[in-house]
Amino acid sequence: MTRPPADLETLIELMARLPGLGPRSARRAVLHLVKKRGQLMVPLAEAMAEVGRTVRDCVNCGNVGTGDLCAICADETRATGQICVVEDVSDLWAMERASAYKGRYHVLGGTLSALDAVGPDELRIPKLLDRIRTEEVSEVILGLAATIDGQTTAHYIADQLGGVEVTSLAQGVPVGGELDYLDEGTIGAALKARRAL
Amino acid sequence: MTRPPADLETLIELMARLPGLGPRSARRAVLHLVKKRGQLMVPLAEAMAEVGRTVRDCVNCGNVGTGDLCAICADETRATGQICVVEDVSDLWAMERASAYKGRYHVLGGTLSALDAVGPDELRIPKLLDRIRTEEVSEVILGLAATIDGQTTAHYIADQLGGVEVTSLAQGVPVGGELDYLDEGTIGAALKARRAL
Repeated sequence: MTRPPADLETLIELMARLPGLGPRSARRAVLHLVKKRGQLMVPLAEAMAEVGRTVRDCVNCGNVGTGDLCAICADETRATGQICVVEDVSDLWAMERASAYKGRYHVLGGTLSALDAVGPDELRIPKLLDRIRTEEVSEVILGLAATIDGQTTAHYIADQLGGVEVTSLAQGVPVGGELDYLDEGTIGAALKARRAL
Repeated sequence: MTRPPADLETLIELMARLPGLGPRSARRAVLHLVKKRGQLMVPLAEAMAEVGRTVRDCVNCGNVGTGDLCAICADETRATGQICVVEDVSDLWAMERASAYKGRYHVLGGTLSALDAVGPDELRIPKLLDRIRTEEVSEVILGLAATIDGQTTAHYIADQLGGVEVTSLAQGVPVGGELDYLDEGTIGAALKARRAL
């Protein structure tokens, strides 16, 4: 058996570490890259190296950006009184795509998890408490996942915050959602939080 | 709405062009890369740039390699009398993983397709005919997919080859396969090609 060139095997192995790709799909992706060397592989390698050079975590909120402060923390038009606490940068991006929120964020970098030994100090929780003392925050919106770990984290944070209004995203029927396909927990929550029309 | 940094958006867009990744999974992969800048993104960018610099198509068979000739064409211990014709480099690698074949290969780079306007000259078919004239080939093994396009290509190649034995991979029950889950075409082919125990 003649093996593929060593450089290619290294590349496949690294690609296979990306979420959503396994050894098989990484091989397929790499062969596609080899076919499209000029149009895709070279620009992709350069884009990746560029991002590796320029991107860093915002020292204030943990979002990704290219300076000490991310674009949101540096934006003086964003309201400073509200902080939306999210688990990850991807959640922040999802909130931004919804274009419904004009305040600041705080990215925890994960959720508390006894099983994985993630405590408050592994997350960006001390920095959040710090920001609440210094930034004149009036409301903390918890935008955490409706999972056990997410809700444990939400309760822990709510306990730590005295003197600030703490809210959480509403639970209910998603837009376009059909009742038939929803789980009982969601329907129960939507019924409990029903509102007058 | 504040958009992600432009470098990141470029990277996501390029990643989304890989097979098996869409815009959503590309975003997820890129955020994973950003989190693992040191351990994953920088090595991956370097590996990709390196492959972009070194890899090229073998002038003889179309396999990928790092020189004019690929490792298989350059290997003098491989039998020269047999050429296995495959559609793509991934098929060649699959054959090599099986460790069942000791001859040379010829990678077509696709299949004939009237719909996509792929004719013999778009594939590496002229080079195959050339090799058969110059390399003293005694057998051409067609290792093409059992699809319409694959079989059309196989018939076309068989027609072009005079004076050389042309064979094709057997069709039948895959190892570990249960009859219950096999399609009728495969079972029919396996029955037709049954052999004495």
